[in-house]
Amino acid sequence: MRALISVYDKTGIEKLAKELVDLGFVIVSTGGTARYLAENGIGVMDVSEVTGFPEIMDGRVKTLHPKVHGGILARRENEDDMRTLENLSIKPVDMVVVNLYPFKETVSKGNVAIEEAVENIDIGGPSMIRAAAKNFKDVIVLTDPTDYNWVTDDIKKGGISLEKRMYLARKAFALTAYYDSLIADYFRGLTGEKYTERLTLAYDLKQNLRYGENPHQTAAFYEKPIKTGASITSSEILWGKELSYNNIGDAEAAMKAVMEFDEPACVALKHQNPCGAGIGVDLMEAYTKAYEADPVSIFGGIVAFNRTVTLDVAEKLGELFLEVVIAPDYEDEALKKLKEKKNLRIIKTETMVDRGDSIEFKSVRDGLLIQDEDNGLYSNIQVVTKASPTDEELKDLLFAWKVVKHIKSNGIVLAKGGQTTGIGPGQVSRIWAAENAIRQAGDRAKGSVMASDAFFPFSDVVEEAAKAGIKAIIQPGGSIRDESSIDACDRYGISMVFTGMRHFKH
Amino acid sequence: MRALISVYDKTGIEKLAKELVDLGFVIVSTGGTARYLAENGIGVMDVSEVTGFPEIMDGRVKTLHPKVHGGILARRENEDDMRTLENLSIKPVDMVVVNLYPFKETVSKGNVAIEEAVENIDIGGPSMIRAAAKNFKDVIVLTDPTDYNWVTDDIKKGGISLEKRMYLARKAFALTAYYDSLIADYFRGLTGEKYTERLTLAYDLKQNLRYGENPHQTAAFYEKPIKTGASITSSEILWGKELSYNNIGDAEAAMKAVMEFDEPACVALKHQNPCGAGIGVDLMEAYTKAYEADPVSIFGGIVAFNRTVTLDVAEKLGELFLEVVIAPDYEDEALKKLKEKKNLRIIKTETMVDRGDSIEFKSVRDGLLIQDEDNGLYSNIQVVTKASPTDEELKDLLFAWKVVKHIKSNGIVLAKGGQTTGIGPGQVSRIWAAENAIRQAGDRAKGSVMASDAFFPFSDVVEEAAKAGIKAIIQPGGSIRDESSIDACDRYGISMVFTGMRHFKH
Repeated sequence: MRALISVYDKTGIEKLAKELVDLGFVIVSTGGTARYLAENGIGVMDVSEVTGFPEIMDGRVKTLHPKVHGGILARRENEDDMRTLENLSIKPVDMVVVNLYPFKETVSKGNVAIEEAVENIDIGGPSMIRAAAKNFKDVIVLTDPTDYNWVTDDIKKGGISLEKRMYLARKAFALTAYYDSLIADYFRGLTGEKYTERLTLAYDLKQNLRYGENPHQTAAFYEKPIKTGASITSSEILWGKELSYNNIGDAEAAMKAVMEFDEPACVALKHQNPCGAGIGVDLMEAYTKAYEADPVSIFGGIVAFNRTVTLDVAEKLGELFLEVVIAPDYEDEALKKLKEKKNLRIIKTETMVDRGDSIEFKSVRDGLLIQDEDNGLYSNIQVVTKASPTDEELKDLLFAWKVVKHIKSNGIVLAKGGQTTGIGPGQVSRIWAAENAIRQAGDRAKGSVMASDAFFPFSDVVEEAAKAGIKAIIQPGGSIRDESSIDACDRYGISMVFTGMRHFKH
Repeated sequence: MRALISVYDKTGIEKLAKELVDLGFVIVSTGGTARYLAENGIGVMDVSEVTGFPEIMDGRVKTLHPKVHGGILARRENEDDMRTLENLSIKPVDMVVVNLYPFKETVSKGNVAIEEAVENIDIGGPSMIRAAAKNFKDVIVLTDPTDYNWVTDDIKKGGISLEKRMYLARKAFALTAYYDSLIADYFRGLTGEKYTERLTLAYDLKQNLRYGENPHQTAAFYEKPIKTGASITSSEILWGKELSYNNIGDAEAAMKAVMEFDEPACVALKHQNPCGAGIGVDLMEAYTKAYEADPVSIFGGIVAFNRTVTLDVAEKLGELFLEVVIAPDYEDEALKKLKEKKNLRIIKTETMVDRGDSIEFKSVRDGLLIQDEDNGLYSNIQVVTKASPTDEELKDLLFAWKVVKHIKSNGIVLAKGGQTTGIGPGQVSRIWAAENAIRQAGDRAKGSVMASDAFFPFSDVVEEAAKAGIKAIIQPGGSIRDESSIDACDRYGISMVFTGMRHFKH
């Protein structure tokens, strides 16, 4: 029996090779692996002895030879194949142990020269892996050191079952697919292409989740092999139970919302929708506003900050039942205080710096929708009414605008003094969203400003706003009936600002 | 100059080869490709003349030879590499034209024997493609017939720029990544594994979209190489403009909702939330109920049916402005009538048969959340109150339950007589969702039943339901305060049913 071993990652390889020798395998090996095994006292045959051809071009070409690949690909139950091997003096290869040049690690370093990246594209390795996996019935393909032990155990017990050979083949193709996805992605970065004709997305399993959106749905959390910036995925969980499926989705939404703000800010969120948001001179003020915006819905919710959490804020948070707290960092005393809550998940994001363009997607059956993240805010701010907002109102309009961008459509947000006073998300009708926000605001509606994520098809929202005492409105504009909303504002002395940018979120 | 040509798909290959011969290339080729070119009068050198080694094992091993791969991989500016070529009498290969065995086409046929699938895993082809793409500075790699023309044109004009060579290399790795993703997926099907340690997802570009959720976001629509069942992705668009990003997402949601029903059903939807739903003895009754449930929000919405659309329904639809109509099919006269609407998209889904388990996912920054689709309905129906629902109420409870499963959380749905009477989606607080649904129902709340997508944390929703005249409630149950809701129901003579299954949807 022959085993062909050529590994970049040498974890466990010495033990495996020794076991294989004990089991009667002849070890065929290449370059660095052959030297490593020989140094460890394991007798190996160099692949050039097999091929009768030298290893050339700094190892670029060593195993790409019919004496190797014929030995891997020959179908044992096919008489012609076996006769061919005999005629050409090719020995069958029964096991292939290969892992690949570290392409991911190389390009992850950042600022890598193309030459270095390209030199780390393995050619011979994937060829052997793929050939062995194709012939999985006859050849054992090992691409992961964690499989070495059970495989030698099984051989000792009589052999590897067909099911397990299939499993190894599945892993082999998963590796080559993953490897080439990263390489294709690297080249896509070089060419600057975006929506290419073929797309492959590669991920590593980060966490098996207890369940999905609901307990009867299985779920898992995957992460990109190469991270690109601030994210919940790469955040540190400082405390608490594992994040659930809904925690991750909600934490992501809360983080994105709070990242809209430059000043100290706090966003409380439930079921993908902010239920309260506030800004202030410090986190304490921001938190207090976010909390008081809706002291009921925050229960069991997620709270996100864009500054280091201080002790006073942590003490206030301690009064509530929350699922998750998110912040770039925590003062030691604040963290200690928060850790008194056994079930609270505490997430440290390190940075809250946006990384510009990035792509998001969601699956539909048999398909995938891909788009840029909504990284815009407005294209230009234009007062369209006779009345203009005061400086204070303009500040509130921009604050409300940032919040309404992060609620589900149709969405309306009311705000006053850097605090949301009413949030109306997720309605099939814009007027209902407005009515919900106004009803929620109660007395606070008077003197508030209003933000709408999309334009007004009719003047009805303005009419309701006027009745409630709203002073100023911000919306994208662009309806064929804009004039009727503008006229209504003028009638009531409300100022209205167009942003020229819609923020649907579904 | 040498070009190595080995293609399964022979589109354009004759013309390309002739042009290359005219440009002074020596054509090296293999098996079927060599014969095809020779038959078309093009002089080719068989690859075995290059390698001095026969093509063996029915073509399983033909190009995996250092005389081929050395010629591809040699760095032209590297003196050692070039000296090696000379010493070993290897001629540089300047162009590689390869496409692959039809693995996708083979497994798409369905019911394919493992042997046949495995035989269609190309080994030599990906090796050559990858080697040429790695050495893209010196080697032109052609994997797509649509590139043949511009490449020969560029060569005539003096050569291929580095940018274009990178583009070809990107395409090459996109192809091998895609190819191996499909193979890994096939093996995953064989082993029955689900959330594997490495995951690659492969897609084909279906459509560049005008924009994403909002006009400032670029977007595209991709489709799976191998379709698995009824979907918007594989539906036929019988009429109208291209689907937009939001159309696709909404159409998917509407289709899934209407597929809940066995009897003739209609769901009208806006911004991912049903705004009206109805069932009846025929589509006309179902549509009328869905329309009358909320004759305002349906404007500009999406309407989905689970039966062939008849002329009477089409005439009614013609009275409205709708974005999309979805149905398994349309009677000829009905289709003709609908086509009078120039901007209406008409989608034919062929089937509305569910295909059991399938996986859905959504991206978070640097990560991916994966879960089973919510294919459950309830685990068991249990009456928990003194009062039991009547048969009629039970029918309405199950109807409302199917609708509430498809609205955003927190969600409450009221229904009566196979028609939604109030829909309260997407609230951060359950009581607000209930209040919205009841307010929307108006007089119709009296005698309606209520469905809640998750359990009641307090008895407040029951109190509101009682005030509104709700007769029966369906909800998952499972709160530690279930008793307080049950007691409240008993106080008001309301019947309540637990399903044991939650349906959050975010």
